Amino acid sequence: MSTVYDVTRWTIPGRPGVNANNDIGAVINSIIADVKASQPGQVSKPGAVIYIPPGDYSLKTRVVIDISYLQIKGSGHGFASLSIRYNTADTSGWHELSPGASHIKVENTDGNAEAFLVTRSGAPRLAAIEFRDFCIDGVSFTPNQNSYRNGKIGIRIASDNDALKVAGMGFVYLERALVNNGADAFNVTDNFIAECGSCVELTGASQASKITNNLIGAGFVGFSIFAENTEGLLVQGNNIFPRGRSMVHLKTSNRCSITGNRFQGFYPGMIDFEGVNKENLIVGNHFRRVPEGFPPLQGYNNGKDDLYGVIHLLGDNNMFSGNLISFDVPASAVTPAGATPTMVLVAGGDANFISNNHVVTNIATNHVVLDAGTTNTKILDSGTAEQVVAYSASYALRPTP
Amino acid sequence: MSTVYDVTRWTIPGRPGVNANNDIGAVINSIIADVKASQPGQVSKPGAVIYIPPGDYSLKTRVVIDISYLQIKGSGHGFASLSIRYNTADTSGWHELSPGASHIKVENTDGNAEAFLVTRSGAPRLAAIEFRDFCIDGVSFTPNQNSYRNGKIGIRIASDNDALKVAGMGFVYLERALVNNGADAFNVTDNFIAECGSCVELTGASQASKITNNLIGAGFVGFSIFAENTEGLLVQGNNIFPRGRSMVHLKTSNRCSITGNRFQGFYPGMIDFEGVNKENLIVGNHFRRVPEGFPPLQGYNNGKDDLYGVIHLLGDNNMFSGNLISFDVPASAVTPAGATPTMVLVAGGDANFISNNHVVTNIATNHVVLDAGTTNTKILDSGTAEQVVAYSASYALRPTP
Amino acid sequence: MSTVYDVTRWTIPGRPGVNANNDIGAVINSIIADVKASQPGQVSKPGAVIYIPPGDYSLKTRVVIDISYLQIKGSGHGFASLSIRYNTADTSGWHELSPGASHIKVENTDGNAEAFLVTRSGAPRLAAIEFRDFCIDGVSFTPNQNSYRNGKIGIRIASDNDALKVAGMGFVYLERALVNNGADAFNVTDNFIAECGSCVELTGASQASKITNNLIGAGFVGFSIFAENTEGLLVQGNNIFPRGRSMVHLKTSNRCSITGNRFQGFYPGMIDFEGVNKENLIVGNHFRRVPEGFPPLQGYNNGKDDLYGVIHLLGDNNMFSGNLISFDVPASAVTPAGATPTMVLVAGGDANFISNNHVVTNIATNHVVLDAGTTNTKILDSGTAEQVVAYSASYALRPTP
Repeated sequence: MSTVYDVTRWTIPGRPGVNANNDIGAVINSIIADVKASQPGQVSKPGAVIYIPPGDYSLKTRVVIDISYLQIKGSGHGFASLSIRYNTADTSGWHELSPGASHIKVENTDGNAEAFLVTRSGAPRLAAIEFRDFCIDGVSFTPNQNSYRNGKIGIRIASDNDALKVAGMGFVYLERALVNNGADAFNVTDNFIAECGSCVELTGASQASKITNNLIGAGFVGFSIFAENTEGLLVQGNNIFPRGRSMVHLKTSNRCSITGNRFQGFYPGMIDFEGVNKENLIVGNHFRRVPEGFPPLQGYNNGKDDLYGVIHLLGDNNMFSGNLISFDVPASAVTPAGATPTMVLVAGGDANFISNNHVVTNIATNHVVLDAGTTNTKILDSGTAEQVVAYSASYALRPTP
Repeated sequence: MSTVYDVTRWTIPGRPGVNANNDIGAVINSIIADVKASQPGQVSKPGAVIYIPPGDYSLKTRVVIDISYLQIKGSGHGFASLSIRYNTADTSGWHELSPGASHIKVENTDGNAEAFLVTRSGAPRLAAIEFRDFCIDGVSFTPNQNSYRNGKIGIRIASDNDALKVAGMGFVYLERALVNNGADAFNVTDNFIAECGSCVELTGASQASKITNNLIGAGFVGFSIFAENTEGLLVQGNNIFPRGRSMVHLKTSNRCSITGNRFQGFYPGMIDFEGVNKENLIVGNHFRRVPEGFPPLQGYNNGKDDLYGVIHLLGDNNMFSGNLISFDVPASAVTPAGATPTMVLVAGGDANFISNNHVVTNIATNHVVLDAGTTNTKILDSGTAEQVVAYSASYALRPTP
Repeated sequence: MSTVYDVTRWTIPGRPGVNANNDIGAVINSIIADVKASQPGQVSKPGAVIYIPPGDYSLKTRVVIDISYLQIKGSGHGFASLSIRYNTADTSGWHELSPGASHIKVENTDGNAEAFLVTRSGAPRLAAIEFRDFCIDGVSFTPNQNSYRNGKIGIRIASDNDALKVAGMGFVYLERALVNNGADAFNVTDNFIAECGSCVELTGASQASKITNNLIGAGFVGFSIFAENTEGLLVQGNNIFPRGRSMVHLKTSNRCSITGNRFQGFYPGMIDFEGVNKENLIVGNHFRRVPEGFPPLQGYNNGKDDLYGVIHLLGDNNMFSGNLISFDVPASAVTPAGATPTMVLVAGGDANFISNNHVVTNIATNHVVLDAGTTNTKILDSGTAEQVVAYSASYALRPTP
């Protein structure tokens, strides 16, 4: 019995009219049923690989994965910008209109939001499932093509899991691209995730995961990367471009690393801490903050003003060091009108450590602002005394000479 | 003559009862013999790809690779925790018990320790061999399942080599997962290597290699990463979790980089320098030091006490900068009893440079300790004067304000 | 109609004598024509995957790719050093002479320089083409094997493009390995690119791209990485070894990141800025500068002297922080004779920020030199006052204590 499946060669027993092109979800579910039936029992359940050749596939039925070690694999991330297409008046002369490669169009007719749902009860946790090298495309947004809304989720992992991997994938025009609830040692690497409402979300609680070496860019209402109750997440070596309500959003998360990334954003709160976040490390990143440049989206933003901070820290003992912030926003676009924009805001917490940062701005800004109630903040070599504003008396400052 | 082999479709000439399921090692050796017989000669020896579909394969015979350009490839790293399984009283209701995907069980009956041995005499060095996307599983430890001992080695590369690659692999329950003796431009990336005695070892002498973008965690007696006599190793962007006697252990190694990693460890010596190590760079890492949390392993440690240093430096001109150390160990668990734990110990050497680090601790600790005989150490912005203890007079200190 | 092609199974209509072994270029062009003929139209053009099994393939005809989503994929990067081979007197006893795996020998007879040309006019831009896991080999240099010259280009992307990917590839003995003119979100990752004149060149203008997790080393006349008019390039986590006229060469490029890389170089100008480059971030890198060690190439260099700077900065608001420079060049080899070598030269520009670097040298050097005309440079913790030389009065210095 082969463990290598090809969606284009699979026939669903009893459903002769259904195939990979008209419902790849039903096909994959049928393959998974076959894998389960073929595995001899508890001692040998190695899973299978399901291959998706290049092609256009409609997904009408949600895939439910409840076995470990399944690899679903295509031949290319297939991303293409739908935003440019939908904001082009006349595409009649275009060579092609859609994303491609191993290209799944999420067009559920089963009432479910997800293209792929990964979930299982009982023990052990699902392990080592891999999504590789294919494209999940939400097709369109509603009520308009710039809303980032359609209720569609590319992959949702709903039960506790270990050592899952999402690599080489493309995600486009999904309200939520990739959601993992209860991740341990989750590996998100080498993906292209853009023009989605939110890109990567670690919900529930998670640990020891990494989001590395990706190209990522979310919508104005969502998150490029969101993580709540996470311990030891590594966000490393990503190129994260607009938009994203926030680009890395930590909620009550501790001891995460955000290092060696390049960020370009259109709104305040590029890094945003919600709740109390402790001992996170933000080192060696480049932050570019400019206004929205794409005319169709210039009417949108994330609702935060320039006093919120390009970087918004909340919690204790976070370290922000060795970063370059480049802020280039016309004075006329600053909100509230006439305000002096804040680069790094410490909104609350004890013993945050801000050192050795270089800040470049086109207008006068406050490099670091300490809100009332912050305590024991260290600010070293991150601006002149005039560029630091403290509403607390509990801090140490060494201005850049 | 095809260069694409599938282990499940190969028949060993003259050995009709042997197949991939009962001895994948014998099968791969037979395939390698066929590749060698098929290659026309010195001017054309492109190698082959040997594919391992998802499945459970026992390896009874060591594979010996003595040709360049061979790629051995599966469909998934297949890691699952055996430690959790073996420390669970009743697994009768578990969905599955073993790791999976392209899953090789190392069960040598040939008297050899290795599942895979890579070696060749003569010139040139073996080049561009690749191990990709399969699982090497040592199955069990002895004398008990928490010993990390079984004498098994996943891959041992024994002769000088160039441009080898290990990517997307899973390793579990091996005493030594991956050993390379004489590496040049070795690429270890995107692997899942955990619950092994030691994970990655560069022995002999090596240069210009990299261990990047992996998830790694070794046992209490072994090394997550070990490198001796290495020049210019890059350890970058890894999430390295417990345990590991040390997590990066450099022995007489120079000009290596340890950057952008996240470390969590249970013992002192998370970074450990043995012998004289020079000009190594340790920047932008997060170090979390906590006590062992898993009850079955709380009786074990690496034998070092808290005066050894979470970071133990020995040698000249090493740089430790931009790191966050988070130490949370109950006073009652500190050894020797009553000691003030050391965060960074400079045990010897000249002109080490420790700057711009943030240290968070639950109890009073010494952030930097300089042993007698150290000279010309620079300590900048890494603690207060009280948090620096020098048994040498040859140093410069700028306390954190 | 299958979208999965194998070059060894393809017959070109009307050209019975041509096959993948004697002209893989003609075969791939024929496959591309078939892909185009097979795609139903504007709404469905998912592309295809073209597989190159391990083998030796001569490319006589340039491949022209003018469709999106094409993936060309092999089974291994196949790099082997041709430099060592050609500089070995007697290789008659060698096991093998050539690179291997999925191995394309670039032997154009069509008068073109490129093995692969990617170009298309009209809209939209080409998207999501992937080159994966094969070897492009220029075979030999002229007029001698150490010239790095043969006019051959591995891959040239000539028209604007989005989300292209080059991963897991090997490139060897090409004058120019990989050239992309007009890149957006270009992903160059996990490749082995060595012994080429130039390795990766981003020409024209580009944005939001990344060159991450590679092993790279160029020739003495070329560039390991070259980028002009680029915005937000991320060069991260690479091990970049000799040679390279420069190792990262930025020309009028802004807001790029060079972080977490290991560099070893034989000449001044390891990082080289040409024209005005602004707001670039260089953090957490290791720079090793030694003399050429390979006897056949000791007569060559990049023509720059030791006053040029190991790091040569030109432009405004660049940040150089948290790096380690290790310089070990005999006084007798310094040029001009008797000069004091410069480690970091700020050749021009405003508000460059140089902080928290450690410099190790075997002879006396100037750690930072400011040319006349530079303004507002900050030099913090990067050398003693004596190790900083300013031909400008507009700077702030805080010497290392």
